[in-house]
Amino acid sequence: MTKRQLKLGANLNGVGNSISFWRHPSIPTDASVSLEFYKQQALKAEEGKFDLLFIADGLYINEKSNPHFLNRFEPLTLLSALSAVTTNIGLVATLSTSYSEPFTVARQFASIDKLSGGRAGWNVVTSPLEGSALNFGKGEHPQHSLRYEIAEEHVEVVKGLWDSWEDDAFVGDKAAGVFFDPSKLHTLHHQGKHFSVQGPLNIARSKQGHPVIFQAGSSESGKDLAARTADAIYTAHETLEEARAFYQDVKARAASYGRKPEELLIFPGIGPIVGRTEEEAERKYREIAELVSIDQALNYLGRYFDHFDFSQFPLDEPFPDIGDLGSNSFRSTTDKIKQEAREQGLTLREVALRASTPRTSFIGTPDRVADLIQAWFEEGAADGFNVRTVVPNGLADFVDHVVPILQARGLYRTEYESDTLRGNLGLPVPANRYAAQNLAKAVHEA
Amino acid sequence: MTKRQLKLGANLNGVGNSISFWRHPSIPTDASVSLEFYKQQALKAEEGKFDLLFIADGLYINEKSNPHFLNRFEPLTLLSALSAVTTNIGLVATLSTSYSEPFTVARQFASIDKLSGGRAGWNVVTSPLEGSALNFGKGEHPQHSLRYEIAEEHVEVVKGLWDSWEDDAFVGDKAAGVFFDPSKLHTLHHQGKHFSVQGPLNIARSKQGHPVIFQAGSSESGKDLAARTADAIYTAHETLEEARAFYQDVKARAASYGRKPEELLIFPGIGPIVGRTEEEAERKYREIAELVSIDQALNYLGRYFDHFDFSQFPLDEPFPDIGDLGSNSFRSTTDKIKQEAREQGLTLREVALRASTPRTSFIGTPDRVADLIQAWFEEGAADGFNVRTVVPNGLADFVDHVVPILQARGLYRTEYESDTLRGNLGLPVPANRYAAQNLAKAVHEA
Repeated sequence: MTKRQLKLGANLNGVGNSISFWRHPSIPTDASVSLEFYKQQALKAEEGKFDLLFIADGLYINEKSNPHFLNRFEPLTLLSALSAVTTNIGLVATLSTSYSEPFTVARQFASIDKLSGGRAGWNVVTSPLEGSALNFGKGEHPQHSLRYEIAEEHVEVVKGLWDSWEDDAFVGDKAAGVFFDPSKLHTLHHQGKHFSVQGPLNIARSKQGHPVIFQAGSSESGKDLAARTADAIYTAHETLEEARAFYQDVKARAASYGRKPEELLIFPGIGPIVGRTEEEAERKYREIAELVSIDQALNYLGRYFDHFDFSQFPLDEPFPDIGDLGSNSFRSTTDKIKQEAREQGLTLREVALRASTPRTSFIGTPDRVADLIQAWFEEGAADGFNVRTVVPNGLADFVDHVVPILQARGLYRTEYESDTLRGNLGLPVPANRYAAQNLAKAVHEA
Repeated sequence: MTKRQLKLGANLNGVGNSISFWRHPSIPTDASVSLEFYKQQALKAEEGKFDLLFIADGLYINEKSNPHFLNRFEPLTLLSALSAVTTNIGLVATLSTSYSEPFTVARQFASIDKLSGGRAGWNVVTSPLEGSALNFGKGEHPQHSLRYEIAEEHVEVVKGLWDSWEDDAFVGDKAAGVFFDPSKLHTLHHQGKHFSVQGPLNIARSKQGHPVIFQAGSSESGKDLAARTADAIYTAHETLEEARAFYQDVKARAASYGRKPEELLIFPGIGPIVGRTEEEAERKYREIAELVSIDQALNYLGRYFDHFDFSQFPLDEPFPDIGDLGSNSFRSTTDKIKQEAREQGLTLREVALRASTPRTSFIGTPDRVADLIQAWFEEGAADGFNVRTVVPNGLADFVDHVVPILQARGLYRTEYESDTLRGNLGLPVPANRYAAQNLAKAVHEA
């Protein structure tokens, strides 16, 4: 295969990430805790030859949390279950380094990797929610820079534990009674600032070597950590220009750390809405967005702006000038809301609907959505996309109508190249650190 | 159903818990990390209408560990995978309270419980291996009594988190936009000596209420904790008399804490070996045991006795008198070895084989094994058994030849009574602590 190939992930999220989606008549209200629901989504994504399933996560809720967050499967157990009913698709679970033990994390991901025959991935996050600390007996949620420092050491320990056994350690010589070769078992003896972990891990590598490491931070420390240590990055951008700037930035950082830029894949998240016509697609968006009353939408919008009361402004006139409001709370979100309103000339009603029911620019006919994907992919803004469902049947519409166009254009596979996640993503199998050392030593001595 | 019914668990352990089993030609050397192997075993157990699958665990290995311990699946991920390919059988995973966070434990078990439609169980252990501390950044492994103190608080927190949502909390009223009833969401606010956990948990109860709690400690604190807080106990006894003494002891303790003794089930572990004749069954044991050379067996035996050299004694004469040797290391094991040798008049060779390849008294024809099971069950020594595989095809032999006898005698089900683990075990669904409080209050006020 000579032409560079697009990668696709399916971001599965039960009753959805908005406050409106669950209210559609076709969505089961228990979707976030229904194995059958996730299984059907997983099989549809696999029918569409997707590279992976992605499960987001969070460690703190309160009564104001969105429906999906209140009552959902834990990602590692969910993906383990899905490993038994799928054959080729990757399984990427989110797990926080701020509230977990590296030994357990290494073990559970390695176990999913073995269960699935080399299809696991770990989306490394540091938990942005302050409340998480309260569920884990920590007095204080660590500050941003400390969280990233912990994350870096955590991932380093996990990767070290994954190399405990060289790939040919288990000789299994029944006649001689030799189960394994002790020279190929390695004890990590990690003693660091935040973790002290001896090893070895009690499970060996899968055929993809290590689970694939994803990261999602967009801060300076986040981008830097990803550029040094991740295989892939999830990101979120509204425009090709923003996405391209991020892409170039991170690829350049990877190169500066001596890495091949093509070995760090960038996946913007999109919520495609596909219709036979542009109008039908727009109608699908409004059908979901308007399941929430305009009062609820205004109230939801106000939560980003210190509970500001937007109901005092006319709904169908341009979004009001509210000055600096919001800059002390969810600043990046409020800046984005203001910028989008200004650039696209949105009314208050439109802004409120988009706040309560997010809407990306990937909306329209299958050709239009495929054109956007192709443009981002070919113009240096994406290596693939993480596709989430924002309207009923959203994933199926994408698989049935957009995927064939991408395949016809030669941008996307018609069959899986591999049965491992690394194989499909075109990422190399990481050498075992100890085997590599031994090889270097042997070469040196020869 | 009027006659009391026997319960059965299948203890699945890949290449086995002995140093000999894996060497048999029919055992795949990668059985401990083969989903296909576990799936076949699980389906066979479900064919035999077993109540549950049980997965043991450990958190520390070194190069002397038994083959199965070196490279095996992590229990929660394995059972999650099996939840997707089974329909009625319970799924019981071992997890240590000494090296885990209650919030994560509560969440992962609740998630398996939801994935499986109410079939999860937690075997609560405190990790006997000193080395575990080294993998979790703890300077020292907590002492026995402290481990049990931690365990008690840990389990209490987990149970509290499981009740975060009342069973009718999720109203899902799409027209009114009401996803849940806030009065049925409860925040734990636990502040204890070892844990501080706010809650609520971000997943609701399954239809069995709580995962079933198993425990396995046989010390005084272990028995006491189980009598107060467990639904079921795993134990290990060689003779009916010992098993009966344990059974009566624990049931009496449960009663003294105001519990119904029949709501605490006791499961001795057995490794049945079934043959068409007694001789065939004995031959099957020796076929496995003798896969280990007598030198290896003597060496393995010596490990329990401070690496004592047993090769100085004649093999086929009675087990030598070695006085107090062994009383400072694995005392309960060495006492048991000496007692069994004395009582059964075993030779050194027999003792060595049994040390390296454990052998329970449940050996012989299907009728003989069924008789033993019936005797233990009817004479107050067991409510059920945890059946492990110690010879190739051991589980299938048991399901095909012993189970039909137990069924014919009216001791054991021919169809599952329920699709939840509690339902099959005959255990009540625990009331949600908050719903129960509200009910009591309503009754009081009426």
